[in-house]
Amino acid sequence: MLIDSPFPKSFASDNHAGVHPTILEAIAAANHGDAPAYGGDDWTALFEERVHAEFGPAAQGFAVLNGAGANMVGLALMLGRYDAIICASSAHIATHEAGAAERLLGVKLITVPTTDGKLLPRDITSRLGGVGNPHESQPTVVSISQVTELGTVYTPEEIAALSEAAHDAGLFLHVDGARLANAAAHLGTDLRSITTDVGVDVFSFGGTKNGALAAEAVIVLSPELASGTPFLRRQSLQLASKMRYISAQLTALLTDELWRQNAGHANAMSTRLADGLRDVPDVGLAFPVQSNAVFATLPAPAVSVLQQRYRFHYWDEEANLVRWMTAFDTTPDQVDEFLDDIRKAVGA
Amino acid sequence: MLIDSPFPKSFASDNHAGVHPTILEAIAAANHGDAPAYGGDDWTALFEERVHAEFGPAAQGFAVLNGAGANMVGLALMLGRYDAIICASSAHIATHEAGAAERLLGVKLITVPTTDGKLLPRDITSRLGGVGNPHESQPTVVSISQVTELGTVYTPEEIAALSEAAHDAGLFLHVDGARLANAAAHLGTDLRSITTDVGVDVFSFGGTKNGALAAEAVIVLSPELASGTPFLRRQSLQLASKMRYISAQLTALLTDELWRQNAGHANAMSTRLADGLRDVPDVGLAFPVQSNAVFATLPAPAVSVLQQRYRFHYWDEEANLVRWMTAFDTTPDQVDEFLDDIRKAVGA
Amino acid sequence: MLIDSPFPKSFASDNHAGVHPTILEAIAAANHGDAPAYGGDDWTALFEERVHAEFGPAAQGFAVLNGAGANMVGLALMLGRYDAIICASSAHIATHEAGAAERLLGVKLITVPTTDGKLLPRDITSRLGGVGNPHESQPTVVSISQVTELGTVYTPEEIAALSEAAHDAGLFLHVDGARLANAAAHLGTDLRSITTDVGVDVFSFGGTKNGALAAEAVIVLSPELASGTPFLRRQSLQLASKMRYISAQLTALLTDELWRQNAGHANAMSTRLADGLRDVPDVGLAFPVQSNAVFATLPAPAVSVLQQRYRFHYWDEEANLVRWMTAFDTTPDQVDEFLDDIRKAVGA
Amino acid sequence: MLIDSPFPKSFASDNHAGVHPTILEAIAAANHGDAPAYGGDDWTALFEERVHAEFGPAAQGFAVLNGAGANMVGLALMLGRYDAIICASSAHIATHEAGAAERLLGVKLITVPTTDGKLLPRDITSRLGGVGNPHESQPTVVSISQVTELGTVYTPEEIAALSEAAHDAGLFLHVDGARLANAAAHLGTDLRSITTDVGVDVFSFGGTKNGALAAEAVIVLSPELASGTPFLRRQSLQLASKMRYISAQLTALLTDELWRQNAGHANAMSTRLADGLRDVPDVGLAFPVQSNAVFATLPAPAVSVLQQRYRFHYWDEEANLVRWMTAFDTTPDQVDEFLDDIRKAVGA
Repeated sequence: MLIDSPFPKSFASDNHAGVHPTILEAIAAANHGDAPAYGGDDWTALFEERVHAEFGPAAQGFAVLNGAGANMVGLALMLGRYDAIICASSAHIATHEAGAAERLLGVKLITVPTTDGKLLPRDITSRLGGVGNPHESQPTVVSISQVTELGTVYTPEEIAALSEAAHDAGLFLHVDGARLANAAAHLGTDLRSITTDVGVDVFSFGGTKNGALAAEAVIVLSPELASGTPFLRRQSLQLASKMRYISAQLTALLTDELWRQNAGHANAMSTRLADGLRDVPDVGLAFPVQSNAVFATLPAPAVSVLQQRYRFHYWDEEANLVRWMTAFDTTPDQVDEFLDDIRKAVGA
Repeated sequence: MLIDSPFPKSFASDNHAGVHPTILEAIAAANHGDAPAYGGDDWTALFEERVHAEFGPAAQGFAVLNGAGANMVGLALMLGRYDAIICASSAHIATHEAGAAERLLGVKLITVPTTDGKLLPRDITSRLGGVGNPHESQPTVVSISQVTELGTVYTPEEIAALSEAAHDAGLFLHVDGARLANAAAHLGTDLRSITTDVGVDVFSFGGTKNGALAAEAVIVLSPELASGTPFLRRQSLQLASKMRYISAQLTALLTDELWRQNAGHANAMSTRLADGLRDVPDVGLAFPVQSNAVFATLPAPAVSVLQQRYRFHYWDEEANLVRWMTAFDTTPDQVDEFLDDIRKAVGA
Repeated sequence: MLIDSPFPKSFASDNHAGVHPTILEAIAAANHGDAPAYGGDDWTALFEERVHAEFGPAAQGFAVLNGAGANMVGLALMLGRYDAIICASSAHIATHEAGAAERLLGVKLITVPTTDGKLLPRDITSRLGGVGNPHESQPTVVSISQVTELGTVYTPEEIAALSEAAHDAGLFLHVDGARLANAAAHLGTDLRSITTDVGVDVFSFGGTKNGALAAEAVIVLSPELASGTPFLRRQSLQLASKMRYISAQLTALLTDELWRQNAGHANAMSTRLADGLRDVPDVGLAFPVQSNAVFATLPAPAVSVLQQRYRFHYWDEEANLVRWMTAFDTTPDQVDEFLDDIRKAVGA
Repeated sequence: MLIDSPFPKSFASDNHAGVHPTILEAIAAANHGDAPAYGGDDWTALFEERVHAEFGPAAQGFAVLNGAGANMVGLALMLGRYDAIICASSAHIATHEAGAAERLLGVKLITVPTTDGKLLPRDITSRLGGVGNPHESQPTVVSISQVTELGTVYTPEEIAALSEAAHDAGLFLHVDGARLANAAAHLGTDLRSITTDVGVDVFSFGGTKNGALAAEAVIVLSPELASGTPFLRRQSLQLASKMRYISAQLTALLTDELWRQNAGHANAMSTRLADGLRDVPDVGLAFPVQSNAVFATLPAPAVSVLQQRYRFHYWDEEANLVRWMTAFDTTPDQVDEFLDDIRKAVGA
């Protein structure tokens, strides 16, 4: 069943990469006899301990199956029937989760245009005009993405300012952390410095894009919110029956900072790519490169040439804007080869 | 991370078993370079071919993450806003999916009491009194479980009669096939004989309880219904980003009839257990043993004694009814040891 | 536009009756100049005062447009995403609101068979087995109908016992009071004796079946629940823009006990009908006549004969069970004429 | 119960006006004996005939209780589970229906910024990038408001161009016609010239703002869509039990063009107001006055002075923008008095 691809390393998505060997080993190691289903197993207990160690004693971790699932379960905890989420226009929950927020949660997304995917405190305070008005959806949650969908990273101070603004207005702060590891690796902090320590209420911690097979977690920092999570996870189709294999993946990432090793490497490869692009004519960087994504503008004919050999997508075809992503397994040679081909494609 | 359990083989659920080695190998084999995300990969193409081979050229297969997910995606294809599902009172969608049908689909479940978990054609025709009445939910889908939640199995003829009754009334027939393999193994048929060939419209094919890590499929037999599946799967939080690892599991089950090998073995172990119980005093069988479940009645003190050593659950505590399940990896020795302990527990 | 009907008085439903003259006058009297929309008007303030007077200072009243709306708004206040309502199998919310509870609230209805439409405390306590189990919908609200759909009436003591059982288990008690006035008239109590004073949390107070044009109210007895009502009413499509005309109807009913006058008269007419039936051969009463409904069994040919002249419906055609309802405007002569025709139809 | 207000004529909303005498008479005239509930009455049959006469033989009318209800029922007919509505950012369904579209329909609103509340064909074609992409909500309906929320009116040609663009892309065209009468009165057309004749699929026809007590209609122009309307109307809490009184209001509006008389008068009063404002210093008109709304900018202190005596609202306080509305019962003297007070307030 070994299938050979005519394509070199994909720069389309960190989802195109495979599973990190350590994680595959953790899965195999969990394949040992029987274990209670639905999370009553020892591997899940171990994962829950790691969550306490990593995010603090108040943090409760719930393993789920994918990123949209982590977002929907986490958000549902904080949202009633007539509520709204304030988020960036570029937020994954607004653009690429197939309307799950609207259908599964039944809430309105109040989307805020941004230049770099990052919300500012004033984006919250300026969207509160309808509070108390029965004709309008009531803003209840601010949701940010860390890393953002544009590859940018919030500093701890920026998140703290957002959580203060949210809490001052009686709102919760949620973080879509599908690439939380990449953010912490970029900032050189631990994971709790950009979550627990800066006032986040509920967040997701993504494993899949960082080398797991399929493993995400919802982390809940308030006991009252946490009590409903098992019910919402089950109902939201996000409860694995053979949970041990999901938990084992997450535990592997949270052991010996494998999360940082993987994310840091992916980030470094994007930085290497961005650095290499600086002297390539006709290629521009659209956003600061702070994680494992490079958003570049280049002439359409060059894109066409490159796409014959490489997998990657337009982000905005009209703007000649493409997204290039690196992964835990991208090598420097692959980046350099890609850079060579970019140079050729633009005729440099 | 090797964790040793004080418990012997679990008889609580086929979800307590681990992953079959062939499936674990298939996962490892898929870990080879890059692959497009979300199903654009070669392993998924291969799975889709196997679905055609197994279920016929009209059948389209969509890999999903768990059994409730397979049910909700499959059912959603056939249900509008004011619709109802006719199902047995014991149906998993009615009893153990946390109200997902009501919340995620927004439909009413018209539950029919049965003696053995199996619907009859008259259970459909007698629930159509509200058709056309705007004050009542409109029955649109009949959903049966094959194997049922009580371990019983529909014959092909019984399913054909249900699909005829459903279609005559303008309803669809859905099958929750979390244990479809066990049914076919019991009947000695192939899988299409109890699905495609007997008028089923949409069904799920379960892998997880049959030796997979986490892999289920929605199989859709009508092109019009199939066209919406990608959207509903994504929105319902059931789309794996690294899809190849889910597809590889399903392909492994559909290769060289691994599904039958695993399910047939599990069934045989339940039959062995049931056979052994026949001469045990004070122990009765509540339903015919036609799959990998044994529903037994026995005195409460005996249950207490057994639960100190074995994992299993009451199905109905008031009725002294327990459910014992076997799995692909249950051994004859484990069954015999359990039988010995049962005999001791009831003082035989 | 005056339309003459070939039918005599309808015994099909209290909804077939028109509007009581006093209520029509109240509507006309409210047609006086401008008034703020959506409830900011003086007529609504007056209605809110009457609610305090009638149901106690903690009671907050919210006028809505129809009975199903009153139920859905009231229930939504108490229900989260993974919750269930315990109610009788015959409950209007379960049988005749087109699945609104499932679609609009997303909850499961746990329906309890009864002999007379009335729940007992043990119907609550015996349905709590799934509490705390993430695989099952969580019972959160007990909903009863007063008058029940079978025309029977709970005594204050019976409701108190239900609210105690519900509250002991951490559940709320909701009353569908579409015919609350008929119940109080039958019992000879005021309205608060069967609501506020016996532990009800949220209930509806129906006006339409009791002589209004279209006016129902949600009455909320806890301030925390009440705060969300304006939002849920608006979102649930139950907020009238020209609210004064709805409020004026409700105020009229709550003035000088018009509610009791209308309901008491309707009840008396059903009693007159039931009394007259006692000596009619082949006609039986299926339930005690405690309100404005008579459930009678009689031979199918007699039903056919009667339906040529009178409007009424089968309740259960197989059981030869029909429902006859009286209204605020049914006259003794109309009842007596109907009795004569019944006697002729059965050949008495 | 006659309540005297200290305020002169309200310019806040056409919902502040009362009920037109002819409509109140129609309600009283319908109060004649019994009538079948839920629309089986003669008044409803008459309304349905008027709908055919007014909107063509294919048009089916369904009376509902309020404007948001009319929108939600009409939109639900055309929308599946993963769909989106393209509408103006200013659309009532997006801004002032409390998130009903998201919660009750479960769909995404793709909101388009406009200068005057009106969509253009290119606003449709430019929002189709996600069609066929399972990660994105699928645009299925274009919804426009006629009159728009900014008081502007689409010409028949503009609607025809939108329906062509929508249909070319496989989308439906919906019109929120809460003030459809005002649009037709402004254009000097009949009602079908801006609906049936220009490719609209489903629309609402508003009565309440045009002199009714509470009466709106969903008009469906395709038989396939219409067949589901009774079910959706019931489930969406929009079915009146004593329907005759709703139907009678709508019939009154559709008799002898009462709709045009009322709307035309309201429009004329806004035009009178706008004309009078032209020579008032410091007061500007934000949008063309094409219906019964005047959007004016004026200094904040002047607004404060005026609001002490008159009821009206800021539309956008930061922009010093207010909305003044006239109604069927606004008199020329009331407009002139208001103009005098405006002049005084701005010191003219």
